[in-house]
Amino acid sequence: MEPRQKLINSAEVCVDEALCGLVRANGGLSLMGGGHRVLLRSDLNLLRGKVALLSGGGSGHEPAHGGFIGVGMLSAAVAGGVFASPPPASILAAILCLHNAGAQGVLLIVKNYTGDRLNFGLAAEQARNHGVDVDMVIVADDCAFNQPSKAGRRGLCGTIFIHKLAGALAEEGCSLIQIVSKVTEVLKGIGIHGEPGIKRSKVASADEVVKTMIDHMTNNDSQSHLPLKSGNSVVVCVNNLGALSCLEMAVVTRATIICLESRGVVVARVMSGSFMTSLEMVGVSLSVMTVDQETLRLFDAKTSAPAWPNLSSVCVSGRSFITEAPEMSPHPQDHTHKEGPLSPVMRTALVKVCTTLLEKQEELNALDRASGDGDCGNTHAQAAKAIQEWLQDHVVPGCPGRLLSVLAGLVQEKMGGSSGALYSLFLTAAAGHVTEGQSNGAAWATAMHAGTQAMKKYGGADVGDRTMLDALCPAVDELMKLKTAPPGGQVAVLQNAVKKASLGAESTLDLTAMAGRASYIAAERVSLPDPGAVAVATIMRTVMETLEEKKK
Amino acid sequence: MEPRQKLINSAEVCVDEALCGLVRANGGLSLMGGGHRVLLRSDLNLLRGKVALLSGGGSGHEPAHGGFIGVGMLSAAVAGGVFASPPPASILAAILCLHNAGAQGVLLIVKNYTGDRLNFGLAAEQARNHGVDVDMVIVADDCAFNQPSKAGRRGLCGTIFIHKLAGALAEEGCSLIQIVSKVTEVLKGIGIHGEPGIKRSKVASADEVVKTMIDHMTNNDSQSHLPLKSGNSVVVCVNNLGALSCLEMAVVTRATIICLESRGVVVARVMSGSFMTSLEMVGVSLSVMTVDQETLRLFDAKTSAPAWPNLSSVCVSGRSFITEAPEMSPHPQDHTHKEGPLSPVMRTALVKVCTTLLEKQEELNALDRASGDGDCGNTHAQAAKAIQEWLQDHVVPGCPGRLLSVLAGLVQEKMGGSSGALYSLFLTAAAGHVTEGQSNGAAWATAMHAGTQAMKKYGGADVGDRTMLDALCPAVDELMKLKTAPPGGQVAVLQNAVKKASLGAESTLDLTAMAGRASYIAAERVSLPDPGAVAVATIMRTVMETLEEKKK
Repeated sequence: MEPRQKLINSAEVCVDEALCGLVRANGGLSLMGGGHRVLLRSDLNLLRGKVALLSGGGSGHEPAHGGFIGVGMLSAAVAGGVFASPPPASILAAILCLHNAGAQGVLLIVKNYTGDRLNFGLAAEQARNHGVDVDMVIVADDCAFNQPSKAGRRGLCGTIFIHKLAGALAEEGCSLIQIVSKVTEVLKGIGIHGEPGIKRSKVASADEVVKTMIDHMTNNDSQSHLPLKSGNSVVVCVNNLGALSCLEMAVVTRATIICLESRGVVVARVMSGSFMTSLEMVGVSLSVMTVDQETLRLFDAKTSAPAWPNLSSVCVSGRSFITEAPEMSPHPQDHTHKEGPLSPVMRTALVKVCTTLLEKQEELNALDRASGDGDCGNTHAQAAKAIQEWLQDHVVPGCPGRLLSVLAGLVQEKMGGSSGALYSLFLTAAAGHVTEGQSNGAAWATAMHAGTQAMKKYGGADVGDRTMLDALCPAVDELMKLKTAPPGGQVAVLQNAVKKASLGAESTLDLTAMAGRASYIAAERVSLPDPGAVAVATIMRTVMETLEEKKK
Repeated sequence: MEPRQKLINSAEVCVDEALCGLVRANGGLSLMGGGHRVLLRSDLNLLRGKVALLSGGGSGHEPAHGGFIGVGMLSAAVAGGVFASPPPASILAAILCLHNAGAQGVLLIVKNYTGDRLNFGLAAEQARNHGVDVDMVIVADDCAFNQPSKAGRRGLCGTIFIHKLAGALAEEGCSLIQIVSKVTEVLKGIGIHGEPGIKRSKVASADEVVKTMIDHMTNNDSQSHLPLKSGNSVVVCVNNLGALSCLEMAVVTRATIICLESRGVVVARVMSGSFMTSLEMVGVSLSVMTVDQETLRLFDAKTSAPAWPNLSSVCVSGRSFITEAPEMSPHPQDHTHKEGPLSPVMRTALVKVCTTLLEKQEELNALDRASGDGDCGNTHAQAAKAIQEWLQDHVVPGCPGRLLSVLAGLVQEKMGGSSGALYSLFLTAAAGHVTEGQSNGAAWATAMHAGTQAMKKYGGADVGDRTMLDALCPAVDELMKLKTAPPGGQVAVLQNAVKKASLGAESTLDLTAMAGRASYIAAERVSLPDPGAVAVATIMRTVMETLEEKKK
């Protein structure tokens, strides 16, 4: 893969601009003037009488180390160029600044790279000559070495653990000697493994990669292994080296927890994210630190460092993490229903609607081919068949609302696509408004209106957008007259509603699609009415015919 | 670029494994059983009497939305497959679970995608039929449209703002109606722009890309623009769409703040990181929300949601973010020094050492070619020349410690490489132990010892590693006898020390390099002494000779 062009202004200024961006975005940080690449806590006055912590290293590893500056973590960080150690003069400037702020000693936390060791070392010795009480811990947590090497294990993401623990101790007011002593002890219990590292291999599954890393990290035959025994408690850092997706990170996090638990290890805490990256390297590193209660307390202590994640202080292993699903009643279409006086007419209407939709299948498909994907007749036919099948084995419930719920369930499950969802929405929203005791014209009008409103609200379309609403809305407007019409005038209202639906469907011929799939098709291709609107008008007409036949 | 292989176990299980990973790593989250992809707060009991918030959508946008579950943000989130809307049955299960936990109403926060609107809408209507008080807000913050479109503006990263504000309101005990009202008002003040979005263009500089995005977002001619006026206060989210490096993110963050401020906009808060990604898309989106004091208060409210960043509540614009660099004294080599009784002999020794190192330049290079990069003589010659030059214009200070500091500064600046840093370390650490008043043999021994210790500590090498320490350490061990030797015995100690240095240098012939550049070379190639050790022995012999000549 060719390296992509970077979203920066220029290679020359990117480090300084990135430091500026980090500082400007985070109120707890400040930038040292004078051309130094030094980030500091903006509340340096709070350091008086406490040990100050300084870290740093080459750039390109963001958010390290500037993102770990804050109360309870680092007091300052010095950055070098991309992958280059910071110059001793800037390190010294940072130490002196912390010293001048009243810090009681400065601890340098340095990763085990020759350049960093020498430059931080030099600045430390110079600071000592200035009368500053300064000490250094070197983090060498890398477990990638099989053979002993004097250059030694590199300092990697485990450094973040040290920032956190030392930061908590400093915040509590511990002395430099106390902090160095605790950190030195903790350093024995940190191991890290990064891929790519020990070997290049064809990308394996996440579970396999994690197993390989943990196997190697804990292998007694390896000079740099972390002795990890069943029963040990650990904190784990799953570190995105730069460009792994959050989805992959979560998969790797799961694999890591399960792999450690399978060895009897108690995973006390997990942090998962970007902590010490390598520009946009596609990969992950795992850092493991064995912990006791005291170390865990320090790990859990609050910090204002911007790159520290929002962690809970609940033990990962042993926690019950499944919530029971609520009891859901079976689908309405699977219920056993009771028949009622209205059941026969509703069955007749349904049978007739299904037959008609099946007859119209090809006509609707043809209309849809002009503006959509040509399956409008098919989806309606699918719904019709599902309803026919259901009618064979079930009684039609006497409560119209229950029937609407049944139909909602059937079309949601069997019709598919947006049409299925929209019909289902309509029927579900309508269902609550017609019951066995309340099924007069006014109730039906209210139900139809509620269904239409839901379709509008969730579907996001309106009259004039060339959808089924162009047939439905004028019909429902007419139906609403049922609420005030005298008993003798109801039939006329129904007939008018059906007429309005047909007129509305025909009117879509002149409309440009504004919603639904048809909106993606160029306007000039459409010279036929919208098939969805035609289907709605057809259904309404068929129901009307049933009611009129019943009257005869 | 070919898509890289993903670090997952299989496409089929990656969504469920990622959800599991997120839940397992975060104690505040739980996973609903029964095959639903529903994440919930693990402390559902705390919802009693409060409004519950539910969001969700397709997977592949992690940490959205599961990462925003917690006290003060979402109560639950439903995930679909990768880039697919979640099924209504799971959404309904989530709503009922929150309702059963005692929530006083459930608010659905839905992004403006047809599938999400329909599926959440359907579940909402079904929940209503179950007697749940449920409402929905639709987030459509996308500013990418120039032309009006019925499908409308997509819901993007601004959704996170709504999670936060609604979450804070719910936590404070506001009613469903109150929350919907506030959120509806806030939604008018949110805009987002993502690249790629409105146009594909050759990658420009970060500043240009940001300017284009903000220009378009706020362009009055665009149907979907965010009206942004000078004096407005805003919260900005700089969102990594997946695979941008943290360095680039910080550069873009800086550009965003500066661009907004250049228009007179007050940047109140900035969040920068991965909030709503699109797998590993290389890109960034900017979300801007205009805020008043009340909105800002809600934004700043605490949350335990794992993906919410550790933000400070200090206004970004107008904050002084530069800390003055400490006053650093000029380099010791640039000081004006006072001569003293020791100045002549020290000058003589220095001159002689420089001459000798220049004579030995080719010999040292030849030794180095066997094991290193053949420039050991050159680096020593560079140091020698720098010292010679300095001696021409400067008096040699009477205080030996000051002279050592001068030399430390010169080699740090002019010698270069690890050798420069190591000599500088040695000299800096030694400098504090010899002063004008304390410059007897014992003081010099202590100084040499301190220098050697610093070299060991920061350089990480020891005797036997085939470095200059193999000459230096035995010599210094001998020199330490000066501390107890009778005045008459001091010359013998010095002579022995020089002998030990030479023997030590010769002994490296048999050693395998364990540190420094030579450690990277195969052992069989080395059959000559280490040039660094030879140089040290040479320097010591030359100094000795000067002292002996002075005695004559």
